[in-house]
Amino acid sequence: MDCVFCKILSGELPSSVVYEDDAVLALLDIQPVNPGHTLVIPKQHSELLTDTPPEMLGKMMAAAQRMAEVLRLADLRCDGVNLFLADGEAAGQEVPHVHLHVIPRFPGDGFGLRFGADYSKLPTRQTLDKTAALLRTSLALD
Amino acid sequence: MDCVFCKILSGELPSSVVYEDDAVLALLDIQPVNPGHTLVIPKQHSELLTDTPPEMLGKMMAAAQRMAEVLRLADLRCDGVNLFLADGEAAGQEVPHVHLHVIPRFPGDGFGLRFGADYSKLPTRQTLDKTAALLRTSLALD
Repeated sequence: MDCVFCKILSGELPSSVVYEDDAVLALLDIQPVNPGHTLVIPKQHSELLTDTPPEMLGKMMAAAQRMAEVLRLADLRCDGVNLFLADGEAAGQEVPHVHLHVIPRFPGDGFGLRFGADYSKLPTRQTLDKTAALLRTSLALD
Repeated sequence: MDCVFCKILSGELPSSVVYEDDAVLALLDIQPVNPGHTLVIPKQHSELLTDTPPEMLGKMMAAAQRMAEVLRLADLRCDGVNLFLADGEAAGQEVPHVHLHVIPRFPGDGFGLRFGADYSKLPTRQTLDKTAALLRTSLALD
């Protein structure tokens, strides 16, 4: 298996571990947005969000919540926290092992979202309702 | 309670609902990054990630996972999905009712992350290990 996170889990590659339980490992991102930027990964390999058992996602989220608390308590700059997950290459996923980013934030840190040119064009309620109907139909068929 | 999402939940304000169960509601963001951009919110009000019961976070995540599947199946542009959560004002939280963004993505959509000036300066392993030790100590004390 040529997966960086599986190699970290097996001890083949180094990492800076923050938290560990039976299901998940939390380690520091080697290219942090801000100091303390943590990744929560499942010990059991799965590539995509959509491949990962919901119970495992719950455990990842519980660990991310603890990290969000602890980042605020620690001697670090952290006034808020972003969670971020990239599911698939088109969403910016770089390591093919699902991982939840826990990013400490403080005013003026320079991190944020960037948007496409159409972002300021608000859809009408009619357009939103059509999209919602489309998604409810797909949900019913799934 | 002057909370927009609580007003949506009570029917006082309109919304375009995509999914609903006992615990959560999924509705379309009125300023979508891309068509189909969904917010998963708990029916029980809580402001911060860190205020929200872990079981509820698990239910929000399970709903987000279903949405990530369904967005790919629906007649929409969706090749990947980002999950995003802003916990606290310093992290960009605008509505004081915890919400998980489920954002459909496709190549060239213009959405992404922006980084501070120091982002390219990689910390040494020694620095990462010191930060990890600090966080493990806070975790042990919490």
